[in-house]
Amino acid sequence: MKKHNFAAGPSILPRPVIESAAKAVLDFEGIGLSVLEISHRTKEFEAVIEEASSLMKELLNIPEGYQVLWLAGGASTQFYFVPFNFLEKKAGYVNTGVWAKKAMKEAVNFGETIEVASSEDKNNTYIPKGYKIPEDLDYLHITSNNTIFGTEYHEDIDCPVPLIADMSSDILSRPVDVSKYVMIYGGAQKNIGPAGVTFVIVKEDALGKVTRKIPSMIDYRTHIKNGSMFNTPPVFPIYVVRENLKWVKEQGGVAEIQRRNQAKAKVLYDEIERNSMFMSPVAVEDRSLMNVPFVYSEKYKDMETSEFIDFSKKYGMVGLKGHRLVGGFRASIYNSLPIESVQALVECMQEFEKQYAK
Amino acid sequence: MKKHNFAAGPSILPRPVIESAAKAVLDFEGIGLSVLEISHRTKEFEAVIEEASSLMKELLNIPEGYQVLWLAGGASTQFYFVPFNFLEKKAGYVNTGVWAKKAMKEAVNFGETIEVASSEDKNNTYIPKGYKIPEDLDYLHITSNNTIFGTEYHEDIDCPVPLIADMSSDILSRPVDVSKYVMIYGGAQKNIGPAGVTFVIVKEDALGKVTRKIPSMIDYRTHIKNGSMFNTPPVFPIYVVRENLKWVKEQGGVAEIQRRNQAKAKVLYDEIERNSMFMSPVAVEDRSLMNVPFVYSEKYKDMETSEFIDFSKKYGMVGLKGHRLVGGFRASIYNSLPIESVQALVECMQEFEKQYAK
Repeated sequence: MKKHNFAAGPSILPRPVIESAAKAVLDFEGIGLSVLEISHRTKEFEAVIEEASSLMKELLNIPEGYQVLWLAGGASTQFYFVPFNFLEKKAGYVNTGVWAKKAMKEAVNFGETIEVASSEDKNNTYIPKGYKIPEDLDYLHITSNNTIFGTEYHEDIDCPVPLIADMSSDILSRPVDVSKYVMIYGGAQKNIGPAGVTFVIVKEDALGKVTRKIPSMIDYRTHIKNGSMFNTPPVFPIYVVRENLKWVKEQGGVAEIQRRNQAKAKVLYDEIERNSMFMSPVAVEDRSLMNVPFVYSEKYKDMETSEFIDFSKKYGMVGLKGHRLVGGFRASIYNSLPIESVQALVECMQEFEKQYAK
Repeated sequence: MKKHNFAAGPSILPRPVIESAAKAVLDFEGIGLSVLEISHRTKEFEAVIEEASSLMKELLNIPEGYQVLWLAGGASTQFYFVPFNFLEKKAGYVNTGVWAKKAMKEAVNFGETIEVASSEDKNNTYIPKGYKIPEDLDYLHITSNNTIFGTEYHEDIDCPVPLIADMSSDILSRPVDVSKYVMIYGGAQKNIGPAGVTFVIVKEDALGKVTRKIPSMIDYRTHIKNGSMFNTPPVFPIYVVRENLKWVKEQGGVAEIQRRNQAKAKVLYDEIERNSMFMSPVAVEDRSLMNVPFVYSEKYKDMETSEFIDFSKKYGMVGLKGHRLVGGFRASIYNSLPIESVQALVECMQEFEKQYAK
């Protein structure tokens, strides 16, 4: 049975990317060796990492003065890299849920850390707006898409202080005005590639402004100077990223991907609104195009979550269980999830309603 | 033409491991999804990471009280993790070359850091012995195998203070008395798996003795508490590690691997001694069984390195170029390099001698 992969991350990748990855594991570009057993200093791999960076620059229209880095670890690693490199006196964080709070927690040991705005009063079901950003911040940190709660900034905000965004789960899902940020980062394992590599887009002249000593590996300038090859990078994850970025470009780039994402999200949100058994807990204007949490509607709120989960498995649905902080269900509909999978989910929800609605 | 892969790292992996990895990229254990697109929280992946840890414990006979961790990054990441977690007042480092020095460099910002012994006087061609280890050290750090210079500790040393070893390039190549160390760590990309994951074997009761605040992701206790899943781990590299550890076990374990490594090294070192055109720059008793640097003998010292490199390529040899700090050539003969590749290299060296010796 065909599987429809709604996992929140690590998550679905395009089939051609997977096939290319499997081929490279057996024989990397016809050199007679696996991509798993070649030196990162080979000209073949250097071409891969360079192409990955230049594709990122092209796809996101990254201005001059910014560098693209491929580092080991995930966004959680960047949670302490950020204050190490940017926090001299005072940092501001917008609290939009679990990951935003985790990022903020790692800053407190480095300097004054303030919560500039929060959506905790309503279980993080919206994106705070209209708050005042203090002008004495070294930076403001936002989480542009909230995987757990299903909220998303749909536009790049204006910010009077350097802006840093964790875009782990919505990078490449829409065009971004990179010039509004000093740094954008994220784990690859949602929209860019497999787990094990992190992308960092950083404005070079924003670095070097803190007085503390930074371990070489934590200092972004080390990695800029060495083209992400100060130490052995995660070779295979970067290979898969390059293949995936090529795929994004072949699809027509980020604008076309955004168009598809909007179409996919509309199909799903429309069904959640229509279906008598389900509802969305998220404020309409802040609903994520990447992660769509939904719960049983009021009338059915005492039904077991497992009823719909078990039902959906018969339709090949994977990864639909909601996060425990929201409950219910969550469909992650990242870039590479085809609309056919969303349609299959909608049919499954409709069939569930036919069989279970009272 | 069959390739003989002597790369220093990332380096050769057993063919069955590569084939298994390629299969899992296409379909992970028959679940209809790629290993690249499954959540690390699936029961299938949890079984993989648990088996990897239990195989490490079994193969290295790791005593009670130690934990095995799989973290993102490489040994270079651990260079700052180590002082963060262990350096309260004073640390000692044995300087056996580039990587040992890089590790030492990251400690200096955390506390007093002393070089307890060094082999720099003879271009790191030996392992220092007979030095005094100050008893007031928080730890002594050694690099058990020196990839660049081709020296290796062949035994676990006695140490009056907590001993920490970077075993990136000789882990699993011989039985180790883990009880002599508080921590052993290394990048996977030589003897354990592909680039992108680091193993850490750490004695639990040696942790928690420093007063500084440690970022969550740098604190080993975070990863112990969460079974290496505090954040998304490098899923695919860990999968390949598990496959490789299974392979080591199938071969007969670390004792059998050591026997093979000794046999392979003997064949190669014997030829270096015999061949009139080559010599080893390394002290006989400290020669590495993993990385074998060799240079032209005195009589041929003006020959271009490229002559033998180009010649060897015709025999399918890959990765033989020596590190610039040593010059000449280097054959890395890790666990999974078959003796047939060493024999092919020896034949190539003999043929070179026939054609070029004067």
